[in-house]
Amino acid sequence: MEAVAEPKQGINVKLIVPFINSVRNVFSKMLNTTATIQRPSVKMVPVPQYDVSAIVGFSGRILGSVVVSFPMATAMKTVAGFAGMEMDPTSADFADAVGELANMIAGGAKKDLGADASITCPSVIIGAGHSIARLRDVPCLAIPCDSGFGSFVIEVSIKEAA
Amino acid sequence: MEAVAEPKQGINVKLIVPFINSVRNVFSKMLNTTATIQRPSVKMVPVPQYDVSAIVGFSGRILGSVVVSFPMATAMKTVAGFAGMEMDPTSADFADAVGELANMIAGGAKKDLGADASITCPSVIIGAGHSIARLRDVPCLAIPCDSGFGSFVIEVSIKEAA
Repeated sequence: MEAVAEPKQGINVKLIVPFINSVRNVFSKMLNTTATIQRPSVKMVPVPQYDVSAIVGFSGRILGSVVVSFPMATAMKTVAGFAGMEMDPTSADFADAVGELANMIAGGAKKDLGADASITCPSVIIGAGHSIARLRDVPCLAIPCDSGFGSFVIEVSIKEAA
Repeated sequence: MEAVAEPKQGINVKLIVPFINSVRNVFSKMLNTTATIQRPSVKMVPVPQYDVSAIVGFSGRILGSVVVSFPMATAMKTVAGFAGMEMDPTSADFADAVGELANMIAGGAKKDLGADASITCPSVIIGAGHSIARLRDVPCLAIPCDSGFGSFVIEVSIKEAA
C-alpha cells in the first residue's frame, strides 16, 4: 500500500484505499488471481489508451465515478476467467460481464466508504483507443493494476459532497 | 410528441418525455437552434456508431443513465455553438463542454421527473466508432435528434427503483 500512502494533489487517500482493497478482493474471490497495484498517478488530461471500459457513477455523499479500463486482449481473458468461458466481445454478454465486474468493484468500495452514497448501474464502452474525461473539478487518480490476465487500470475520480 | 406517445417494450413513457423536453430546451436556450426529435426505438444491442458521447448516471428513486452521442463533425459544431468558439477535440475544454451540455440535459429532465433522484457528474468518451452498453435489465430507448449542427442521439436507459 505504500504507493498510495503519499497524499496526491487534491486527492483524499481515505477515498482511494477502499477501491484498491475492493479490486484485490474481487480479483481474488471472483477471478481466482491476485491483482497487484502499481503506483497511482494524477490524471490531468484524457489520454486515448484503452479498448474496453466500464463506468460506475457515485452520487449522494460521495460524488464522481470509477472507471475500469482494459486493453481488448486483457478484457477478453478477464471476462473468460470471470464467466468461465470465452465470449465474443461484440456480444451483449461480454459487456454485461465487464459491467458486472465493475459493479462488484464499485459496490465493495462503497461498502468500505461507509458514507451515504449510491452507485449507478455500470455503462460499458467498447471501442479501440477511446479516452474518458471527467469534470476537472473532481481530481482523477489513475491506478495501474496487473493480474494473471494482464494489465488494466482503475481510474477513481471522486470527492466528498460539500 | 407523437413519436413517443406509443408505449415501447418495457419503457415508461412518463420517464422519457422529460428528456425530450429538456433536449429541446437546452438546444433552444443554450445553442440558439431547434432540436427536432425523430422516432425513438428500443436499443437491444450495443452498436458502434458514434465518436463523442457523454454519460450521466441516475440513482435514487430513478435508476439508469442518459447518454448523448455525436458523430465527431456534429460534436465539433455543437461545441463551437455552445462555447462560442471552435475547440480542439483532444483538449480537456472540449470534453468539458460536451459534459456540461449533457449535464444540462440530464439536470433539466431530473427536475421534470420530480422524483427523489440524483445525477452523477458527466463522463465524456471520445473515440471513433465506440459503442456503449448498459445492463440489460433496464430497457434503453434511442432517440435520434437533429439540430442546426447535425444529427445526434439521446439514449435513455432508466427505470423507477423497485
